[in-house]
Amino acid sequence: YYGTMATQTKPVLYGYFRSSCSWRVRIALLLKGIAYDQVPVNLIKDGGQQLTEQYKTLNPMQQVPAMCIDGITLSQSLAIIQYLDETRPGPRLLPAEPKQRAQVRMICDHIVSGIQPLQNLYVLQKIGTDKVEWAQHFIIRGFQALENLLQQTSGKYCVGNEISMADVCLVPQVYNAERFKVDLTPFPTIKRLNQTLLEMEAFQTSHPSCQPDTPADLRV
Amino acid sequence: YYGTMATQTKPVLYGYFRSSCSWRVRIALLLKGIAYDQVPVNLIKDGGQQLTEQYKTLNPMQQVPAMCIDGITLSQSLAIIQYLDETRPGPRLLPAEPKQRAQVRMICDHIVSGIQPLQNLYVLQKIGTDKVEWAQHFIIRGFQALENLLQQTSGKYCVGNEISMADVCLVPQVYNAERFKVDLTPFPTIKRLNQTLLEMEAFQTSHPSCQPDTPADLRV
Repeated sequence: YYGTMATQTKPVLYGYFRSSCSWRVRIALLLKGIAYDQVPVNLIKDGGQQLTEQYKTLNPMQQVPAMCIDGITLSQSLAIIQYLDETRPGPRLLPAEPKQRAQVRMICDHIVSGIQPLQNLYVLQKIGTDKVEWAQHFIIRGFQALENLLQQTSGKYCVGNEISMADVCLVPQVYNAERFKVDLTPFPTIKRLNQTLLEMEAFQTSHPSCQPDTPADLRV
Repeated sequence: YYGTMATQTKPVLYGYFRSSCSWRVRIALLLKGIAYDQVPVNLIKDGGQQLTEQYKTLNPMQQVPAMCIDGITLSQSLAIIQYLDETRPGPRLLPAEPKQRAQVRMICDHIVSGIQPLQNLYVLQKIGTDKVEWAQHFIIRGFQALENLLQQTSGKYCVGNEISMADVCLVPQVYNAERFKVDLTPFPTIKRLNQTLLEMEAFQTSHPSCQPDTPADLRV
């Protein structure tokens, strides 16, 4: 028995610096001011550390993120974030008003189900050729819809003037779009919101360019 | 002005008989005993009715389902279902206890983000060849993880002994698996839960085989 009680109850995030789904969880942790430990899972090295039997017990889907918290293990970023939101103090990531909550979830799901799964590492590995064209295709299609939705729902942030889980999902998806060299000019609302959010400390501290497992040549 | 107040406030579901995401919403409506109107959107006819400008105003992603309810339009099945759950009486579709809520959401997201998007119509159209092999690949991979999760969380239903949003997601995904001729033998927990759920009236009445837009030759 080594740790103090505080150490023991700190949630442990299994993630990868460049995984947009891991980044979502890091942003949520920082926005809510929750101390956590991070265990890097390198999706490339050794053929992918997420494919080990050891990691499979944490997340049978063999993807990041996973989180050990309060005696249970969770996977899927939105399930983790909503659990944090429902059990931890700090600014809420879902609005109190049901229609706004629904709009936040709609935007999150457009990204989390409608865009990200089609351009993630596992799918691109299966595609083989034309990876960049494939990823661009689904990101652009998704951003056309998202731009349209955000024009209706956004204020200073994705839904009105309070930060929410939708903002937590938006920024990592824009980062992915930039990795795949998607031109953001046709998406002025997405671009504006992303810029506003990137000025916040929670988005900067959690950025893929400055995580414990970020390789030296990718550090900013 | 024609309708009564009750008619006016009835939610309108835009869906397609065979869309698993539309079916999720129908199950939730029936489980909670919510009266609704249904407008069929034929994803095949006329090159896809979801691609019309008219439908695009309802859901810029040009997918089903969409719902007009309480003066707003929502898309994304889980956002719709959770809005219904938070604003309508009837059996709750998310447990009260935070850890169980998280497990329900984790299972839902495994299906809704991890499996369904990779085998939906739009993606298969982009794949072109080897559609069945592609769909089977991602369904089998997802079911291996899901079987593992459900062995840990399930009781009579997906999470413990109360029906939840996880069950609402499971049955339509098993229906998709069967359409793509996935052998369910390696997934005994998925198979058992699916059989139990299909005995319930809400799952039968909402089934793709008996919707207003089900073609005559597919009716049971």
